[in-house]
Amino acid sequence: MSDYRIVAVETHDIRFPTSLELDGSDAMNPDPDYSAAYVVLRTDDGFEGHGFAFTIGRGNDVQTAAIKALEPYVIGRDAEDLGALYKEMVWDSQLRWLGPEKGVMHMAVSAVVNALWDLKAKREGKPLWLLLGEMSPEEIVELVDFSYLSDALTRDEALAILRKGAVGKAERIARLKESGYPAYTTSPGWLGYDDDKLRRLCKEALDDGFTQIKLKVGADLEDDVRRFKVAREVCGPDFPIAIDANQRWDVGAAIRWIHALSEFGPHWVEEPTSPDDVLGHATIARAIAPIKVATGEHVQNRMIFKQMLQAGSLSYLQLDSARVGGVNENIAILLLAARFGVPVCPHAGGVGLCELVQHLSMFDFVAVAGTMEGRVIEYVDHLHEHFVDPVVIEQGRYAAPSRPGFSAEMRPESIAAHSFPDGEVWRNS
Amino acid sequence: MSDYRIVAVETHDIRFPTSLELDGSDAMNPDPDYSAAYVVLRTDDGFEGHGFAFTIGRGNDVQTAAIKALEPYVIGRDAEDLGALYKEMVWDSQLRWLGPEKGVMHMAVSAVVNALWDLKAKREGKPLWLLLGEMSPEEIVELVDFSYLSDALTRDEALAILRKGAVGKAERIARLKESGYPAYTTSPGWLGYDDDKLRRLCKEALDDGFTQIKLKVGADLEDDVRRFKVAREVCGPDFPIAIDANQRWDVGAAIRWIHALSEFGPHWVEEPTSPDDVLGHATIARAIAPIKVATGEHVQNRMIFKQMLQAGSLSYLQLDSARVGGVNENIAILLLAARFGVPVCPHAGGVGLCELVQHLSMFDFVAVAGTMEGRVIEYVDHLHEHFVDPVVIEQGRYAAPSRPGFSAEMRPESIAAHSFPDGEVWRNS
Repeated sequence: MSDYRIVAVETHDIRFPTSLELDGSDAMNPDPDYSAAYVVLRTDDGFEGHGFAFTIGRGNDVQTAAIKALEPYVIGRDAEDLGALYKEMVWDSQLRWLGPEKGVMHMAVSAVVNALWDLKAKREGKPLWLLLGEMSPEEIVELVDFSYLSDALTRDEALAILRKGAVGKAERIARLKESGYPAYTTSPGWLGYDDDKLRRLCKEALDDGFTQIKLKVGADLEDDVRRFKVAREVCGPDFPIAIDANQRWDVGAAIRWIHALSEFGPHWVEEPTSPDDVLGHATIARAIAPIKVATGEHVQNRMIFKQMLQAGSLSYLQLDSARVGGVNENIAILLLAARFGVPVCPHAGGVGLCELVQHLSMFDFVAVAGTMEGRVIEYVDHLHEHFVDPVVIEQGRYAAPSRPGFSAEMRPESIAAHSFPDGEVWRNS
Repeated sequence: MSDYRIVAVETHDIRFPTSLELDGSDAMNPDPDYSAAYVVLRTDDGFEGHGFAFTIGRGNDVQTAAIKALEPYVIGRDAEDLGALYKEMVWDSQLRWLGPEKGVMHMAVSAVVNALWDLKAKREGKPLWLLLGEMSPEEIVELVDFSYLSDALTRDEALAILRKGAVGKAERIARLKESGYPAYTTSPGWLGYDDDKLRRLCKEALDDGFTQIKLKVGADLEDDVRRFKVAREVCGPDFPIAIDANQRWDVGAAIRWIHALSEFGPHWVEEPTSPDDVLGHATIARAIAPIKVATGEHVQNRMIFKQMLQAGSLSYLQLDSARVGGVNENIAILLLAARFGVPVCPHAGGVGLCELVQHLSMFDFVAVAGTMEGRVIEYVDHLHEHFVDPVVIEQGRYAAPSRPGFSAEMRPESIAAHSFPDGEVWRNS
């Protein structure tokens, strides 16, 4: 145990008026205002840990209140015993009733757990991916809650994966520092953009060195056919183009729609139906093979991912940095994916999700999967300017962060301007 | 459309200090303070609709804030177009991100939807079960959101179930008014009670005419064996005794533990593992057959119930009145259960859950399943005195409510005294 203590928990309801530009528009989310229910933990020796839950506008106040409800669990504590602190918050018998381990309360745990990791990484003077990457397999399994996982992954199996993953770590760390981690971009594909903008952004994506793009689909089949055709023309016949339906379809409709788009060779089909529908995803996956299913940004916890892996519901696992119980539960999810040999291609975008998730993929490369083969991190060119340590994309790859922390810290002037409803952005709207 | 409007939404954070008595203590919830995030809708012509989400203490403030966030959706509206209003709240694209359809935000929808039904039933001068029971199949399907269900239940299939269910309605309504609906009691079985209290309460349950009881299990196997033996001795070899693990086990542990208790012939095993684990429940169900699995009180929505029915995860479906999206989603769940021929035995207890859920089971009997065979409603003898129209149990059966509404209304003096943290119960604690 260390000799500092967390003495203050500060929360902010931060919203960006992104709906004005139709950035982020898809078949289910026509007008999102990208938002962060934001938390700052302050220690008695002057350090800060930052974290947040991502939402898309209304309800960000509820999410912020849920984070505030966790204040008693962290005041007076340090960030050293993160595994225990994470489990205490998740297993508090009264709060647990509000999930369990899902929705608003679980996203609140995520924000606080991620802030604790930001704090710990800053104190240790390392970027999070490297801090985690250098931990021993024995230290890493201590961070994981194996409850409800043992029919798919035991602690011993996790240890074996991590011990195997530890071989060649130093070399992989060096490789990441040198050339980063591959990215794909969703920027061209928002539904609200017209064909000219789509064409121009596809071209830019190629010029910028990205090796995959993604299109939003699912609102109108004719539009989707036309837009996919435009993207294919610009990108060429073999370039990976993924499509993303954002939960728009029932099982039968998904299969029909995807078949209608199959001539364009989608690299993957993302969120074809409800994120809760393990069996529905599996039915779709069987019906559309060899086209592959990707999902995960709305998967609520490790139990649903476990089942998706058991049932063959997905071929790419898209974890989100701030929906499940933060870094700790995401380590469990990386281990599950490794156990089933499924590549992790994280969800990002929104506000700050790229900043966070790069650390998880890099940790996966260093210490779990041990490979980048078939893996890409989503990249969306939104709102990075509000962060103290924004992602750096070079030649279509995420550069490995070198600054201590989890890259989660928003600039104080951005927090002030976008605070809802009193910041200047909203006061004048 | 009618000519009244909802003009005020009032919320209350109401908590009962039940942890002092160990009422409600089980393997996962050692010290619940039964609570209600409570909402009152007031109309411009003087009617009120009451509803609530049930929680067990901490976090009830967050739940109350989530209900408050729905205020803009109901102000200026009436309760006539309930199907549309329910769907608007569930599908608001920004709020939806906080679930979707799970956890705090979905329970908030539940509270508001149930309050709208309480309002509508009061205006129409009927108890809710009768109001719903007398609707036509065509009116009922309009209330249901069939999204994500069509691989298991289409609108046409639902209509067919309801048309079949409409035959003999009048007779079943008369039968309910005459002799009510069978109940079982959980009162003897809380983990915090000693053997003498267990024995005394089992005896009382028999004397009171209950035809089934339930014991909490899962904390300590030796204790469970001893307690089950006590209950068997009092109740006799053939009396149905269910057991309830409250999500305590992993899949393998569940199977081993249930096998160890199988000599006492459990009527069902409730919540053996995570409520999210459809496949885990199915594995357990196959392994412990012919002992049956019951689950549902923490099942988040119709999509998880759909899968549990598809996978054979449960033999008794225990819907909860205030966790999924209120009456409307529970109608979908009753229809799914009917489609798969699985009896619905609702979860109740807590505060006010018995009051609500009796209406759903009675509607199921009148218009959906058309039978009470193999069905019982949970009964727990807690906190009914705080309600204006408390449940009436006669000879182990729920008497059919006759008062207009959803029996959801708490007495004003109870609301005042138990408001947290300023009501007299808490101010003096």
